[in-house]
Amino acid sequence: MNAPPTPAMTINDVPVYFGDVAGLPDVLSNDYSSVHILADAQTMQFCAPALRSLSWPAPAHWIAMHAGEEAKNLDTCLMVWRQLTDQGADRHSLVVNLGGGVVTDLGGFCAATYLRGIRFLHISTSVLGMVDAAIGGKHGVDLDGLKNYVGVFASPQLVWIDPAFLKTLPDRHVRNGLAEVIKHGCVGDPDLLAMIHGDLSGMAWDDLLLQSVQVKKQFVEADPAERGIRAALNFGHTIGHALETFALETGYDLLHGEAVALGMLAESQIAREVAGLPDAAVDRINTAVRQVFPELGTPAIPPEVLLELIGKDKKRRSGHVHFALISALGVPSIGHQVAPDLIRRMLSYDS
Amino acid sequence: MNAPPTPAMTINDVPVYFGDVAGLPDVLSNDYSSVHILADAQTMQFCAPALRSLSWPAPAHWIAMHAGEEAKNLDTCLMVWRQLTDQGADRHSLVVNLGGGVVTDLGGFCAATYLRGIRFLHISTSVLGMVDAAIGGKHGVDLDGLKNYVGVFASPQLVWIDPAFLKTLPDRHVRNGLAEVIKHGCVGDPDLLAMIHGDLSGMAWDDLLLQSVQVKKQFVEADPAERGIRAALNFGHTIGHALETFALETGYDLLHGEAVALGMLAESQIAREVAGLPDAAVDRINTAVRQVFPELGTPAIPPEVLLELIGKDKKRRSGHVHFALISALGVPSIGHQVAPDLIRRMLSYDS
Repeated sequence: MNAPPTPAMTINDVPVYFGDVAGLPDVLSNDYSSVHILADAQTMQFCAPALRSLSWPAPAHWIAMHAGEEAKNLDTCLMVWRQLTDQGADRHSLVVNLGGGVVTDLGGFCAATYLRGIRFLHISTSVLGMVDAAIGGKHGVDLDGLKNYVGVFASPQLVWIDPAFLKTLPDRHVRNGLAEVIKHGCVGDPDLLAMIHGDLSGMAWDDLLLQSVQVKKQFVEADPAERGIRAALNFGHTIGHALETFALETGYDLLHGEAVALGMLAESQIAREVAGLPDAAVDRINTAVRQVFPELGTPAIPPEVLLELIGKDKKRRSGHVHFALISALGVPSIGHQVAPDLIRRMLSYDS
Repeated sequence: MNAPPTPAMTINDVPVYFGDVAGLPDVLSNDYSSVHILADAQTMQFCAPALRSLSWPAPAHWIAMHAGEEAKNLDTCLMVWRQLTDQGADRHSLVVNLGGGVVTDLGGFCAATYLRGIRFLHISTSVLGMVDAAIGGKHGVDLDGLKNYVGVFASPQLVWIDPAFLKTLPDRHVRNGLAEVIKHGCVGDPDLLAMIHGDLSGMAWDDLLLQSVQVKKQFVEADPAERGIRAALNFGHTIGHALETFALETGYDLLHGEAVALGMLAESQIAREVAGLPDAAVDRINTAVRQVFPELGTPAIPPEVLLELIGKDKKRRSGHVHFALISALGVPSIGHQVAPDLIRRMLSYDS
């Protein structure tokens, strides 16, 4: 008999396991009345098979949802809550979220609100999920296209990261997740930038993922409810979110990580102007982004539209527009008010 | 200048104020960016006027919802979340829930999930809200008629109880709330039973409300997340909830407290059989219920239907059917499995 797996780390007391998902049942408690596995169209096809032979501690049921950010809404929640009642989920049930950020964000929210909260865990299947979305307790869905407007902070029983699932991802989605790894390099661990290159098959994935999660851990534990320094993780996201909203509204095909990558290109230049980020660091970030996204273009967005989107989203959320920048590689510098003129000027970075 | 009001008590660190609602602004912090007051059709008409002249610490907006349990659903939540975004609510906004249990349950849930949780407070305007619904952190809404299936535990900034609002209630709704006071008498403080009589105008309301809230405080603080003894507060509710569901489904006009009152009549007899509740105590409960509800009749529900409803709801929630009974006045005795035959027999109590 093998010893049960041990967590690679804990983050705010949530154990994060790293390795073959076959080990998951060995670390589950045995007091669950039922298990409900939520997967989207992608993970149902490519990841679910690895789970079907596992011995769950209680009868297991499956819930299928659509894939993609468009599905991260309250209609899908309603479907999940109804399936939970139909499948007989009670206060002692477990929800297992099998997927990337959309599935873990939505499934965690549904579980944390079903019968005022039942237990759940995440099996993260994408780069973006593993290093970012599944870590840190933020869960929720979009409201009329407003990102993550309805949600809760809640802790999963555990997070499971099995790098083998990355082989199920299209290249574009692997690169998409690497944007958050680059961001973690920028705000907390410059060594990460050296580990990234354009050839996806040649990277030291285990080290890359673990070291990236370590950066997220550091900020999440310092500031669990995002009242201060956790905002550093928004580097690239102020402009990135605005680009993403514009893309959603106009039907332009742009993934979250791609938007953040473009956001980092612009915001690193803003950081040079207002936070003293050295030229060499700006170049280093550019190189990393361009290695991963050699052909990524910016949607043709009029600067005034972008400025308006930035203002609306940030003001709606927090009453002001503050940029989370960096003053050196690995050194966050948050709370910057940036003049519209400067933003307008920086948006011409690639022209 | 008067000293600011002081709380009558705190419950799990939530201050509970008792008195003229005009004192509310004096105890609010001044770091809110906006105030959003949720009221239903009733409280908008009869209670809102008392709030319109108050000086809020930030611009105040109103949100109106329908009254009644039928409105406690996710459609209403969607309306509230949308109003919050339209009114510019951000992370520093305050939601004020002005109403009975439906408004505070739903408004608390909406606030606790808007932008992953913003601050909120309850101004409770009904007897049932003051002694029960607004106290203890449970918030949520019904899902396809399943009571409170979607919700969270969350703490308001404070609860405000102004007995003057009781004058805005129809007699029937005052009596409705007294059912929970009788229940508090049964499970925690028999003195409460002596304070209740049929003549509503002659009761010592301030004492009655405060002493009833004290009972709720005692159970809520002993067991905030309802893992054990807090279940004692479900006395009368196992059968009561089933009657309520039956009434909702068949269009029979029965309020929550009325259903609980009928539930206590039946469950006190069950308690005599399985928990040794003395005859005199059963009689005492009957007298109290009949003083407040002299003409309340039981809906004509076939025993088998009731048994099925009891089983479905309880099993769905917790995987088993356990009754929360009492073994003497003021002495809870929870976790009873009750044979269907006995339930069937006890249902004939009023024939």
